[in-house]
Formats: sequence, structure tokens, C-alpha cells
Amino acid sequence: MVSIVAGGGGFIGSNLIESLLIESNHIVIIDNFSRGNLNFLNKYPQNRVHIISADLSFADQCMAAFNEAACYGQIKEVWHLAANSDIPAGIKDPRIDLNDTFMTSFNILVSMRQCGIQILHFASSSAIYGDLGSQLLHEDIGPLFPISNYGAMKLASEAQIFAAGEAFLSRINIFRFPNVVGVPATHGVILDFINKLINTPSSLQVLGDGTQQKSYLHVSDLISAMLEIRGATPKKQIQVVNIGPLDEGVTVQWIAEQVVKRVSPGARISYGEGNKGWVGDVPKFNYSTKRLQSFGWAPKLNSAGAVALAIDEIALQLGR
Amino acid sequence: MVSIVAGGGGFIGSNLIESLLIESNHIVIIDNFSRGNLNFLNKYPQNRVHIISADLSFADQCMAAFNEAACYGQIKEVWHLAANSDIPAGIKDPRIDLNDTFMTSFNILVSMRQCGIQILHFASSSAIYGDLGSQLLHEDIGPLFPISNYGAMKLASEAQIFAAGEAFLSRINIFRFPNVVGVPATHGVILDFINKLINTPSSLQVLGDGTQQKSYLHVSDLISAMLEIRGATPKKQIQVVNIGPLDEGVTVQWIAEQVVKRVSPGARISYGEGNKGWVGDVPKFNYSTKRLQSFGWAPKLNSAGAVALAIDEIALQLGR
Repeated sequence: MVSIVAGGGGFIGSNLIESLLIESNHIVIIDNFSRGNLNFLNKYPQNRVHIISADLSFADQCMAAFNEAACYGQIKEVWHLAANSDIPAGIKDPRIDLNDTFMTSFNILVSMRQCGIQILHFASSSAIYGDLGSQLLHEDIGPLFPISNYGAMKLASEAQIFAAGEAFLSRINIFRFPNVVGVPATHGVILDFINKLINTPSSLQVLGDGTQQKSYLHVSDLISAMLEIRGATPKKQIQVVNIGPLDEGVTVQWIAEQVVKRVSPGARISYGEGNKGWVGDVPKFNYSTKRLQSFGWAPKLNSAGAVALAIDEIALQLGR
Repeated sequence: MVSIVAGGGGFIGSNLIESLLIESNHIVIIDNFSRGNLNFLNKYPQNRVHIISADLSFADQCMAAFNEAACYGQIKEVWHLAANSDIPAGIKDPRIDLNDTFMTSFNILVSMRQCGIQILHFASSSAIYGDLGSQLLHEDIGPLFPISNYGAMKLASEAQIFAAGEAFLSRINIFRFPNVVGVPATHGVILDFINKLINTPSSLQVLGDGTQQKSYLHVSDLISAMLEIRGATPKKQIQVVNIGPLDEGVTVQWIAEQVVKRVSPGARISYGEGNKGWVGDVPKFNYSTKRLQSFGWAPKLNSAGAVALAIDEIALQLGR
């Protein structure tokens, strides 16, 4: 049996492969390696982990990649993790999220239908909720007002997947990711801070006033949660689950302080204005994980623990 | 001042022009006339109603059309009514709604930003709600599970518009349309039934068992509701309003009987199976119009009155 991992060359995808190898005979990774990296995949056995370099935002490349994947055996499922991961870049140019976050989803669905693949696991995002203030963000909340093009195109992807559920998919898991940290880091606040401190070890300039509070999950916990949900007997054809830690998160200020302590002790931290890092940033999340907990799952690390571990891991990744 | 009406050559757009002419100096209609029709616009003065033939699903055609529209004066607003209107066609080929329902929205937003236009009125749809059974469909309900590609791409459009509200739009009206009837009819159950009876006057074959119940609004009431909401002092930057009659609607069986009575008395009506006309059809709506009523607006015709009038109008349109 074959599992396809779209975006499998990226941060989360490359971590997922290890677990999937235990049960699938073959893993086919499809990635354009714009943000992913072939080096992330070096450690996997080449006779079972197959890499197809293709840009899934193009219908013809997507279909060709799926046809190639089918050569390795019957495709039982698709993990769709391909997306833009640079939210501010997507706000400047909406075509980035149109192509990398939405058209990838659209084309994958067309190819799945053509190939008769009926099981989809999709990496959605807490960004679909937008800025709902202090409201508890549970999976059934409305209305959804995404405020970034990234969030909008993740919601658009979910919408198209729901319609595909009516038409041909038999099982759908929508995982709404929180901020995920760990290695190999390709983006995100920790990598950003460490890179800044490598360039100017004496000071760290933070976007926004540092009071933004978000929850963080370590990538090892994220993978474990997704596999737990996939392994459970599905209650419904479409399962939508927020994945995140059980705590309320940590502030950007706290993260900045921990990074300075680890990488460049004594560096002065200065802050910007406002509680948003950029247009489309959401200052505070109150993320419900009740449904996730109903699967009997709990993370090994809370937000602070995940960030602390990731700071150390990313510092090592950068040779510090 | 100039108003742009994207999709202004279609059923609803061509009805809207008449009212807009009272207040805007110039109306610029942008349409690809795939489902719209130039004949619908013959009655309007050519010195004030300008027609640009362009396919808004292509970024370059969209931008060129907006630049051309700007020649007539300062553009104060965009009415975006361009979309696929053949839902079953979009279910067979998802690229139809991708292009005609979503990419039109995406490109219009890019062009509005470039041209500095900050006011958008968008024709969304009750199809974004999907099949939520007997639940009352109010504007803030969640979760939204559209079950047609049309509904998915309308929801995707809303999502992208919300993100644009964060980035550059100052005022957004999202009108969630019900089933709208009237002339010039281009699609829909009444036109379909009359055409069938013209072909075979002795019998009418209905998709589904006829128990599907939906509410219908006459196009004259729809236009009046949109203008009422646009004219009111906005309470919020983004207003999302369900538009529809205040009743619970009529069944497909009742419509079939009225059409037979008007067009081909005595024709035998036969029914299919199931309470869906097609995959992606929603058997029953319970549509909240509470927010609409808070604007002090009420329709002149209920569902039965709107359908009865439209049957007569469409029969006349077809020379019967």
C-alpha cells in the first residue's frame, strides 16, 4: 500500500514520514522543494520513500505526479501538507496563497478523484478562524472571518474538500494546526529571532509590542495527534479537529527572552507598536482542544515546553 | 461617479442596472456574456451604461477592464455578481466554479486594490451553508459544510474578501442570495420545467421526488433588499446578510403543478427518487432573515407569489 504525502519535503511532512514508514509499504513524497528541502529526506530508505519533484499548483504536474505514484502500488490515502508557510509574504502578494495554499488543494482533489483515492488527511490551520477576540475557538464556531490570505485559502481548501466529500471522498480528516515548532525549521518566530541574533548579537527587534499570545505545539506531538485521530474508528465521514496544546500559550515577549538567553545572553530586546506582528496576524488565541481530548490524546509538551525544546533544537540546527 | 457591475449582463445584474442608473452617473458592466446576454442591456442609455466584454477569471482581462472603467470617472464601488450559475455543471467539472465563481472574485479583489476602490457588494449564496438539516441558517452559524463546488467557491470568495477587508477594503456587503426568480431567466427550475413542456407537452419529468422545499425571492425584491442594505448606515465594516422571503418556501412538486397549469394543462407529472435533484442539491432550507428584517425591509412577494409571477414572466419570455 502507498501513502502520498503532498508537501512531504517540508517541516511537518518530513517529520511525518518516519511514522508512516511503520505501516505503509511505500511513501511517495510530492513537493516542489520551494520551502521544503531534499536534505530533510536523506535519512529515509530510498527503496520505500520515493520523491517526486512537482509543483502541485499546476494541474498537469499534479496529475502526472499522482500517476507516477500509482506505479508503486495501490494508493490508500493522501496526506495534504503542501502550502505556503510564509503568511506575511502571502499578504503582500495574494497569488502566493492562491497557488501554494489553495490551487494545490484543488488539483490534489481532481487527481484523487481521477485515481479513485478516497481518503484524505488535510493540514488546515487555526488561521481560518480569523480574529474572533476572546471567543473560544471550537471547530463548529461561526462566523469565520479569516484575516490573512493564508487563512482565506485554507478555508477555501476546506470548502472544496467538503464538496468533494459529497461527491467522492469516503473519509476526510481536517486537522486545524496551531503554531507548530521543532526542526527542521523553515520559518516561524523562533527561527526568525535566532537568525536576527546571529546577524546582530547585541539586540533583537520584535515586530509588535510582544503581548501577542499564542499556543505552540511541538511537531512530535502534532504527528502523534494526527496518527491518533486517523487510527480511531471514525465517528463521521468528515472529522474536523483542532490540534494544539491544552494551555493558553505563551507571549512573544517570553519567546524573545528565552531565545536571547539561549543564543545571545544579554542582548537588548526592543519592541514595536500594536499587538499584531503584521497585517493578518492574530493577537490572541483561545483554542478549544475539547474534541481532540475526546480521542484520549494529550501532548507530551505544553506551549512553554514545546518552545523551549524547539529553541534548543533550532539553535543546534543553525550550529549554535 | 462610476459603479462597476461585474456579471452585469446576467439575470440579476441586468435587473440591478435600472436602479443604479438613478444615482450613479456611469455604470460599467463587465461580463464575458457566457450566460449573460447583450440583449438584456439594450434598453439602457449607451451614454451612461458602458459594456466591457471580458472574462474576469483571467487576471489580465480583469485588470484591463478595470483600467478601462476608470476612464469614465472615479469608481466608487464594485457590485460583484459574476459567477457560474449552473450548479450541476460545476459538480461535474469543478474547474467551472473554480474559474467563474472563485477566480472572478480573486481577480476583482486584486484589481480593486490596484485601482484604490474600497467598496464591494458581493453576491454570495445560501449554498455556502451546505446541508445543515433543519437548523436555522443564520449568518453566524457554524460549521459551514458546502456540498457543491459552487457553494465551496462562493465560501472561498467570501474568505478572500474578508482577508481583503483586513488589508484594504473599507466597506463590504456580502449578500447571501436564496433562489431568485424572474426574467430575463437564464437558468433555474422554472425555465427548465417550461422548456421541458415545450419539448414534450404531455408530460413533465421531475428530478427527485418533488419534496425538496426551498424559498424563492423575486428578483425585484432582491434588488430592493440590496439597495436598502447599501443605503443604511453601516453598523460594521463587513455586513453579511441573508436575503430571502420571510416564509419557509414551496416544494418542487407545487412549482411543477403551477408550471403545468400555466403552460401545458393536463400534462402528467412524474417524479424521480430521493429528495435531492442532484448531488450537491440541498433538500430543505430553514433560512433566517432576522438580520435582513432589522433593516426594516420586507419583500413584496412571498415564495409562492414570486414563483407564480415568475412562471408567467418566463412563459411570456418564451413566447407562451
